[in-house]
Amino acid sequence: MGNVKILNAILSDRLCDLYIKEGVIYKIVYNTADQESVALKEILDIEFSSIDHKVIDANKKYVIPSFVNMHTHAAMTLMRGVGEDMSLMDWLYKKIWPIEQRLDQELIYWGTKLACLEMLKTGTTVFNDQYWHINKAVEAASEMGLCSFHSFVILDLNDASKKDKIIDDCNIMFEQSKNWPTSQKFTIGIHAPYSVSKEMIEWGADFARKNNLLLHIHVSETEFENNESIKKHGVTPTQYLDSLGVLDRNVIAAHSLWMSDKDIEIFAKRGVNVVHNINSNLKIASGYKFRYNEFRDAGVNVTLGTDGCASSNNLDMLETMKTTALVQKAWRYSPTALPIDELMNLSTFNGYKSLGINAGVVQEGAQAHLLLIDTDSYAFTPNINFLANLIYSANSSCVDTVISNGNVVMQNREVIGQREILDNVNRLYKKLID
Amino acid sequence: MGNVKILNAILSDRLCDLYIKEGVIYKIVYNTADQESVALKEILDIEFSSIDHKVIDANKKYVIPSFVNMHTHAAMTLMRGVGEDMSLMDWLYKKIWPIEQRLDQELIYWGTKLACLEMLKTGTTVFNDQYWHINKAVEAASEMGLCSFHSFVILDLNDASKKDKIIDDCNIMFEQSKNWPTSQKFTIGIHAPYSVSKEMIEWGADFARKNNLLLHIHVSETEFENNESIKKHGVTPTQYLDSLGVLDRNVIAAHSLWMSDKDIEIFAKRGVNVVHNINSNLKIASGYKFRYNEFRDAGVNVTLGTDGCASSNNLDMLETMKTTALVQKAWRYSPTALPIDELMNLSTFNGYKSLGINAGVVQEGAQAHLLLIDTDSYAFTPNINFLANLIYSANSSCVDTVISNGNVVMQNREVIGQREILDNVNRLYKKLID
Repeated sequence: MGNVKILNAILSDRLCDLYIKEGVIYKIVYNTADQESVALKEILDIEFSSIDHKVIDANKKYVIPSFVNMHTHAAMTLMRGVGEDMSLMDWLYKKIWPIEQRLDQELIYWGTKLACLEMLKTGTTVFNDQYWHINKAVEAASEMGLCSFHSFVILDLNDASKKDKIIDDCNIMFEQSKNWPTSQKFTIGIHAPYSVSKEMIEWGADFARKNNLLLHIHVSETEFENNESIKKHGVTPTQYLDSLGVLDRNVIAAHSLWMSDKDIEIFAKRGVNVVHNINSNLKIASGYKFRYNEFRDAGVNVTLGTDGCASSNNLDMLETMKTTALVQKAWRYSPTALPIDELMNLSTFNGYKSLGINAGVVQEGAQAHLLLIDTDSYAFTPNINFLANLIYSANSSCVDTVISNGNVVMQNREVIGQREILDNVNRLYKKLID
Repeated sequence: MGNVKILNAILSDRLCDLYIKEGVIYKIVYNTADQESVALKEILDIEFSSIDHKVIDANKKYVIPSFVNMHTHAAMTLMRGVGEDMSLMDWLYKKIWPIEQRLDQELIYWGTKLACLEMLKTGTTVFNDQYWHINKAVEAASEMGLCSFHSFVILDLNDASKKDKIIDDCNIMFEQSKNWPTSQKFTIGIHAPYSVSKEMIEWGADFARKNNLLLHIHVSETEFENNESIKKHGVTPTQYLDSLGVLDRNVIAAHSLWMSDKDIEIFAKRGVNVVHNINSNLKIASGYKFRYNEFRDAGVNVTLGTDGCASSNNLDMLETMKTTALVQKAWRYSPTALPIDELMNLSTFNGYKSLGINAGVVQEGAQAHLLLIDTDSYAFTPNINFLANLIYSANSSCVDTVISNGNVVMQNREVIGQREILDNVNRLYKKLID
């Protein structure tokens, strides 16, 4: 919850100074010559002179909200490129699952560190994670200065005998989470309606509701999953979950690619948040006709994620945004689909909203999750439309400075500890592969 | 046609030195301790000591072929972001065409310079261009050290009265092109079968054939174009062009998104080269089901391009490669579609082949169009599969050094003249927009 003074940033095409106090955007003063602005700056400078703070000269870099990665399995960075151009079943059985058996705390720690490094470099300061050994992931994310949400994953493969062990583990972890840093939050993860027994789905949803926790779940990622649900339960995964009383405002549903009109209506009525993960969907060939317009028109809060690096290979939200818009325009045969301003909201404001964080806008009173974007490059030349250049022309190397919760966590593309992270992962990943 | 010694590069996971002489990869010597290698290096070092050459320590960077952008309108960099989220007709009539009326030689020169800067930064050394004021584009590309192909564009909007003027202009330009630098080549551009009269299509194809020139043409970019062709000529654009005797091994057909089995068969029989431009196709919503497998299986040479920055916003071939593979996997619902090795060929070897250049491989005897890729970053960590990391994890900021025809045109991401190019475009683009 740091204090920072950012000088000469560009916000909505105007030059301004931003005063960040205790992690919150305290004042934004536009650099005009009028008396009021000058007087206000003097007062603020006096106020800041008595508190410990950092000063950054943005030198006409653009200030925008940082991105929220709403669905990932962070430490899967360790499996980047491990199974390419394979069928889904070969990929799971021959590569991913055998490798996951070998994960240990050290690997999760360094894999999550690598993920955090990558997220900072690509402009993400908040992520919603679902993976193993979560205490080590929490340690890594906290050290790197990101805000993060970590699921205790309920995955019993429909084996009721595992119930007591899972409940015990969950209670223990939940107790431990009370000692986590304040930027790391405990959530309940229900892997998916097809991989978890009815009893444990109900238990997990109930535990989340009672303890005021978010509930992170994969829903309707594949057509196969839908067909199986209809065979087994007579209804779609969404309708099945709704019949169990799971769906509520605290639910974050990943993928939701294969949704009927009725399913979307249910999500809207219950206030479920959706995470679209286009690169993963395309690469694994799960589907691509994400029904963005229908979700939006029904009033569902739509957010974006990358999924884990085993399926989509990176955690780059800017790339995700571009692909999301391109594919929406393409499959609907409409170049006006998903315009830029809406797209920006999906990766910022809507994500923060679903996590209960007051951020995703550059406004006084919002938490300071911010990026400074360097426009002195071919990608922003000419700079007729900054957001279009950011999304459609640039890549994430334009992210120069990252502020997470008021702390400067990357400056001039330098992240503290980078060398150590790369070296440790390069040393350790060999434990995972043959 | 420079001379360069590249030390400590990684090629197919082995450390090697590359000796480039007069623009050609002369020798590749793997860094083993065996007597033969050591002796060979001594001989080569003596030979090179007597010729003017540059030495680069690659410091374990990977060496790969540079990319070929097979379809672009380079100076459209000037219109980056000018018309976003618009319908095709609004975009053309309200934005692009009015702006193009204002283009002059100075704008084309600096717009093409900017395009070349961007191409070098993103690893492209060869491009196939179709735009206006081509003498200025040639000047810009030559100064920047790229190899390029520039169309004299035939576009009569089916107005036969323009015939004599076009033919005169084409002859004049062709004569002038004989004085162009050797790295810049003259080609015939026929805009498209729907926008050029039958007479001029035939004349252009004949002129190209007689003078041994490439023929650059848009074919079947939209479904609308196909429907109109069938209404007017009773056949598809491909079958219409074939009936005029246009299709031959010198033809480079851009887009070709809406192709029947019979059309593909004709392309195969005639030896036509195809350029797929996925980002442009997606963004303008022209279509996305490019029939890659069918083209490949029929034996058609498939290559990749970006199209101009007015439609796809950048000239980044690495991004194009990623989107190409993702969309092929997605629309075919097959994660094994378009594997990495094939994808690399599309953007390198196949492009060079269609242009008659012996390059696109890192092999002795090939022209030195090469990149050094910096893998010391999160995107290549761990580096289990270099090509997967390059295409699916990294972005083009990993391109560290670019060699075009044996000349070092970018080193440590520095391109000579960059500042001047950005400043001039930022000054001049205002002539184009209101």
